[in-house]
Amino acid sequence: MTDTVLEPTQLDLSGERLTISYQLTGGEPQARAIADQILVEQTIEFPLDLVPDDDIRAEIVAKEVRFDELTPSTYDFSASFAVEVVGGQLPQLLNVLFGNISMVPGIRVTGIDLPTSLLACFPGPQHGIDGLRERFGTDGPLLATALKPMGTPVPQLAEFARSLAAAGMHLIKDDHSFATQPFCDFRERVKAIAQAVGEANGDGIYLPSLNVPVEDLTSAIDFALEAGVGGFLVLPGLCGFDTMRSISATTPVDTVIMAHPAMLGAFVTDETSGIAHDIMFGTLARLAGADVSIYPNFGGRFSFAPAACAAIATACRAPLEHIRPAWPSPAGGMSPERVPEMLEFYGPDTCLLVGGALYRGDIGKQVARMRAAVEGTKR
Amino acid sequence: MTDTVLEPTQLDLSGERLTISYQLTGGEPQARAIADQILVEQTIEFPLDLVPDDDIRAEIVAKEVRFDELTPSTYDFSASFAVEVVGGQLPQLLNVLFGNISMVPGIRVTGIDLPTSLLACFPGPQHGIDGLRERFGTDGPLLATALKPMGTPVPQLAEFARSLAAAGMHLIKDDHSFATQPFCDFRERVKAIAQAVGEANGDGIYLPSLNVPVEDLTSAIDFALEAGVGGFLVLPGLCGFDTMRSISATTPVDTVIMAHPAMLGAFVTDETSGIAHDIMFGTLARLAGADVSIYPNFGGRFSFAPAACAAIATACRAPLEHIRPAWPSPAGGMSPERVPEMLEFYGPDTCLLVGGALYRGDIGKQVARMRAAVEGTKR
Repeated sequence: MTDTVLEPTQLDLSGERLTISYQLTGGEPQARAIADQILVEQTIEFPLDLVPDDDIRAEIVAKEVRFDELTPSTYDFSASFAVEVVGGQLPQLLNVLFGNISMVPGIRVTGIDLPTSLLACFPGPQHGIDGLRERFGTDGPLLATALKPMGTPVPQLAEFARSLAAAGMHLIKDDHSFATQPFCDFRERVKAIAQAVGEANGDGIYLPSLNVPVEDLTSAIDFALEAGVGGFLVLPGLCGFDTMRSISATTPVDTVIMAHPAMLGAFVTDETSGIAHDIMFGTLARLAGADVSIYPNFGGRFSFAPAACAAIATACRAPLEHIRPAWPSPAGGMSPERVPEMLEFYGPDTCLLVGGALYRGDIGKQVARMRAAVEGTKR
Repeated sequence: MTDTVLEPTQLDLSGERLTISYQLTGGEPQARAIADQILVEQTIEFPLDLVPDDDIRAEIVAKEVRFDELTPSTYDFSASFAVEVVGGQLPQLLNVLFGNISMVPGIRVTGIDLPTSLLACFPGPQHGIDGLRERFGTDGPLLATALKPMGTPVPQLAEFARSLAAAGMHLIKDDHSFATQPFCDFRERVKAIAQAVGEANGDGIYLPSLNVPVEDLTSAIDFALEAGVGGFLVLPGLCGFDTMRSISATTPVDTVIMAHPAMLGAFVTDETSGIAHDIMFGTLARLAGADVSIYPNFGGRFSFAPAACAAIATACRAPLEHIRPAWPSPAGGMSPERVPEMLEFYGPDTCLLVGGALYRGDIGKQVARMRAAVEGTKR
């Protein structure tokens, strides 16, 4: 047997590049070492000295674009990747973005610049901000809520949904904890609630949670659409972003996709690591087809800072070639009382998601309070 | 419209409980508040004062089991959940484990105690340690490697695979960066490599990476099995743990499943948050059907500590009712030189994954060095 010599490789690459930016935490030598690791780790994962002077070395290994000191312990690093490395597929895009380096502390993805040829692989949200504005005939925010609490019998959930729809709620979603439990069967629930929302004869739509086993996904979607749902709540942290993309791309064009952040907090809460809030809940959510992107608002039950929330909203709405803007949907312990503050902070291109607080007293009156607060903000 | 009064609810629950343990970081009042939040956040996500004195309050809301001070800034908290809340489904188990609380800093899942009725929902690995030991006729460690580097033409990858199989490698997997790139088409690659490994006439099997779009998953699996692959590399951090479970459960019984840790580092690297290494790469990997669980070894390109690596290996092999033990597969910058050290640390129930280092010189000789090191350790 002879030595395993890698033959020099010639690749037919377009020259188009995907650029990713990172905040690296550590002293200069450590940050420099992490930067060098990223170039190799996110591409060939191979001893660089074994790669001949060829297209793999020149084109597949990522290229450094920038390495700037921000503070003595944080660095702004940017690298570009041949667009072909991603192959136009969302799982591999995530893999290049943060796959192996998720296991290295001190790396946070802070920017992603997608070339046109890569963006073209993703249709993005089917509706986005303009689409749902037109559909619901509103120039203000969208009003959204969750059916709660887990354990409530299906007939009572359906009555809640009927009241919410009759009162003018736009998006009525399952609580994200609804799966198929013995006390909350998916099909029984979806059928009853879709019927109740339909009978309420409002503009509102019901979005059941697609938190189902993989084998049941297609039949659950078909059943729900047949039952008359208007969209789905999808949990990309559980089912994968590509599953959300696929649901968005393969369901009828009027199907609304709401993304829920379950499990995704692990990527954003440590400010020295992970993926920046705006990329996770803005850019990636849009690439994966979310019309509405739910995230924890500041001052609620969770800990996102106002700056992070503002960045998410900006990324949801920013121009991104043909990819439609998505509705940022701040949530988590919100109430009708907070609507004016939220609208002042976020502006009208916002999906106001108020859950449990609507059950304090009469549901219809609480929705009316939300609507009055929205109207009051307009004046 | 009348007040929305939640009617007291009667549920027919078994009384079986799932118990989850957490390390909470913060002073006592903060840890106490987080503990109280977990009980509600991971179940009803609803104002507790609105829930009547009923089964939802008594049975659906999680129950505190333990709250002990570890240090003045860390607490050991444990809560039990009605098994029905999970509904026997893996996505919802993950949701209960860390869904919403992933967005709250200072919570790390450190333990999970699954009741028999819940474990019964998951077949676990088809082979596990004994199964693959029998299949490969070895009483020592398994030898595994990855085909590299990205950008290498398929015919050359196939020749690498042929050499590796002929030299006695057991598991020959795609590098996890292989998707479908213009220079590395999935079908072309899988067909050529499976054929080369078959012709080598050894015991080794080829495991292509199933990093494909959701729509292509079934056809990719069918194509690969038809081409003669022996298993799959699955990336649950990208496709979701339930997709891995489904692949394991629905492919022929002799299909070997290797789990790759891409993206999952986000859950483990911050020791004050996320999910403990042993649960992520041990318990959850097994529930999702992994025969082999890859993770970064200490002293390699990544940062896992020896204690974390040992805990992963223990969780891979620990008794878990009918769920077979999985092979811990420490990896990431390993080499034949490190085999004796790894075997001393891990013992023989270990899948030694050596990648790029095998390409230093002659592949066959490097595999022979691995095998010699294994034999030397036995004596």
